[in-house]
Amino acid sequence: MPTLLLDKKRCLANIERMALKARANRLSFRPHFKTHQSAEIGNWFRDFGVSAITVSSFRMAAYFTEAGWNDILVAFPFNPGDIEHLNRLSEKNQISILIDNRETLPLLKPITKKVCFYIDIDTGYGRTGVKSESVAQINKIIRDSQSNSNLEFSGFYCHAGHSYKAFSAMERDEIHLKAIADLEHLKKYFLEYSPKVLYGDTPNCSTRENFDGVDEITPGNFIFYDLYQHILGSCNLEDIAVAMACPMVGKYPDDQRLLIHGGAVHFSKESVHIEGRPRYGQLVNPTEWGWESPVRVQFINSLSQEHGILENCGEIFERIEIGDMLHFVPVHSCLTANLMRAYHTLEGEIITTLNS
Amino acid sequence: MPTLLLDKKRCLANIERMALKARANRLSFRPHFKTHQSAEIGNWFRDFGVSAITVSSFRMAAYFTEAGWNDILVAFPFNPGDIEHLNRLSEKNQISILIDNRETLPLLKPITKKVCFYIDIDTGYGRTGVKSESVAQINKIIRDSQSNSNLEFSGFYCHAGHSYKAFSAMERDEIHLKAIADLEHLKKYFLEYSPKVLYGDTPNCSTRENFDGVDEITPGNFIFYDLYQHILGSCNLEDIAVAMACPMVGKYPDDQRLLIHGGAVHFSKESVHIEGRPRYGQLVNPTEWGWESPVRVQFINSLSQEHGILENCGEIFERIEIGDMLHFVPVHSCLTANLMRAYHTLEGEIITTLNS
Repeated sequence: MPTLLLDKKRCLANIERMALKARANRLSFRPHFKTHQSAEIGNWFRDFGVSAITVSSFRMAAYFTEAGWNDILVAFPFNPGDIEHLNRLSEKNQISILIDNRETLPLLKPITKKVCFYIDIDTGYGRTGVKSESVAQINKIIRDSQSNSNLEFSGFYCHAGHSYKAFSAMERDEIHLKAIADLEHLKKYFLEYSPKVLYGDTPNCSTRENFDGVDEITPGNFIFYDLYQHILGSCNLEDIAVAMACPMVGKYPDDQRLLIHGGAVHFSKESVHIEGRPRYGQLVNPTEWGWESPVRVQFINSLSQEHGILENCGEIFERIEIGDMLHFVPVHSCLTANLMRAYHTLEGEIITTLNS
Repeated sequence: MPTLLLDKKRCLANIERMALKARANRLSFRPHFKTHQSAEIGNWFRDFGVSAITVSSFRMAAYFTEAGWNDILVAFPFNPGDIEHLNRLSEKNQISILIDNRETLPLLKPITKKVCFYIDIDTGYGRTGVKSESVAQINKIIRDSQSNSNLEFSGFYCHAGHSYKAFSAMERDEIHLKAIADLEHLKKYFLEYSPKVLYGDTPNCSTRENFDGVDEITPGNFIFYDLYQHILGSCNLEDIAVAMACPMVGKYPDDQRLLIHGGAVHFSKESVHIEGRPRYGQLVNPTEWGWESPVRVQFINSLSQEHGILENCGEIFERIEIGDMLHFVPVHSCLTANLMRAYHTLEGEIITTLNS
C-alpha cells in the first residue's frame, strides 16, 4: 500500500523558520491548517507561540476547536448555509470570517455572538475578493456591516495566489510589491477603523523580506512544502517534509518504464509542468533516517486511479526490483495529505487527521 | 458543504444496459468496482446476474469479500508485498490476480491456496502489460508458472486505456480493432491452455458491437459515467448518474465570475480540455427529481483546494444568488466518488463506501 511518510524534524524546522521570520518582521503568525488537517501536527505550533489559526471550512474549524484552538479564521468567503455552524462555534470561540460582497451581510443577521470579519481583497489573483481599487465598494461593505452589532470589521485579508503561477523572480516581485502597496494604501485610507492586514501565501512568506503594512501572515503549505514549491523557489528539496512510499510492481525494458502502486487516489492529479510536460512527483533516495535528494532527476510521468508510471529510468531501472519501495516528493502536499488521511512518521508513529 | 448526489434510477439503467449488452454478445460481465467502492451499490448488480467482480487493490478486495463477493479479480500487476493479503482472502474466496512479468512468479511461491492468474496484455496503451507481440515472453510466463501447483493460468486481461486519449471515432476504431485482433490471435496461439479473454474499458464497452474472441468484459465507470465519458462519446449527458451540489458563495460582476465551495478536495484535479482549456465540471440544471442537461454550456474553469471558479457566466450570473446550490457533473466520477466517500441519493438516503 502507498504510505505517506512524514519527517517531523523537517516539519519543526519549517515551522521554526517561519515563526522566526514572523518575529523578526514583527508580524503575528496565524498559520493555515488546511495543509496538514491534523490536531496532533497542529499542536507542534504551540511551542512556537502560535495561538490563532486559519482554516478553509467550518468542518475544519469544528475539528480544530475540539483540539483546543479557539481563535480561528475561516478564510473562505462566508457561505450563508454555514450560519448555524458559525453560531455554534462562536459560543465558546473567537471565529472570524471573510466577506467580499454586500449581499452576504443581510444574511448574517441571525448571528448570535460577536463575529469579526475581514474583507477579502483581490490584488490581481482574480479568484475571490473585492478588487483593491474598489475603495467605494469596500466602504459600502463596512457601512452596511455596522447595522449588525454582532459584526465587527477587523481588517483586510489577501491571498496573492497568482504567485503560484509566477515562475520568474521578476513576476513574483511585481505580484508581491503590488499586493503590499495596495494593502498599505487600504490600511491608511480606512485608518479610522484601525484595520489589521492579513497576508501571506507560502511562496511570498518563504522568500520575501519586506512586509511593510502587514500585521499577520497566514501561510499553510510551508510546514510540508512540496515539489511545486521547490520549483517555485520557495524551498530546497531537502526542506520537503512529506514523501510517498510506493511499491514498484512492474518493469518494462523497452522504454525503461517502471510501474508503481501510487495513483491519483494517493498523490492527487495535481501536476507541475517541467520541460513542457506534466509531472506528478519526483523520486528521492531513501536513507536510514528518511530520504534525501536524488542523484538523478526522475519524475512520475503519468498517473491513473491507482497506477503511477516512470519513464526512461536509465540506470535506476536496472537497480530496482519488483516489490521494492520507491520514495517520491508529491507535487502538492495539501492534496496528497487530504487523500492519504494519515501520516507515518520516520519514528514509526501514525498521525491521524480530520479525515482519518 | 459540497455533496455528491446519486441518481439511482440512472445507475440501474446504466447497469442494465451494460448487462444486456454482455448477454447479447454472449459475454460474461465482471464489472470493475473501483468506481463506486460501495458495498450497497455493488449489491445493485446482483439483480442483473453479476457474481464476479474486478477491483484494483487488495484493500478493495477485502472490503468486497466482507460484502459477500467471492469471485474477485485484483486487476493490478501483483505486488509481492500483498502476499499475506492474497493468502488470507484466498482461503474462502476465488481471488484472481494479474501478472505481466516473470520476476514476480518466484515471489508467489508462498501462496497457500489455488490462485488463478491472467496475463496483462498491452495492445498499445503503454501503461502495464506484456506487449501483445511478445509471444515468447508470454510463453515463458506460462511455463514458469507451472512449477507452482497453486498457480493456474486462466487467460489474458487487457485494458485498452488509450481509448481515453482518443477523441476521434477513427482513432478509437483503430485502438479497439487492434486490441480485439491481438487478443484473438493470442487466444488461438495458446489454445492448449483454453485461455479466457477479459477486455473492456467503459468507452469501448459502451460504444462497440464487435467483441469477437472476448469472453468477459470488465468496465467500471459506466455505472456513473461522467463529463469525460460524455466528451468521448461513451454516454449522453443524461446518463451521468452523479452530480456535485455546491453552494455558490461569491459573485464578481467585472468578469461575471462565480465562486463555489467545491474544489480539488471534492472534484479532484482531473480536467478535460474543451476549446483548448482545462475544465473541471459542467453545470447542469436542478429539477424536482434530480438534474437535467443545461440550457447554456457552463464549465468550472479552475479549481484550488476548496474553491471552484466559473467565468463569463452570462445570464446565469444574474439569476443566481449567494447561498444557492449549483449542480455539476464531474469530469472523472471515480476520483470524485473516492474523495467524497459517501453518496446522497435523490430519495434522501446516504450510501457509504470503503472510505466512509
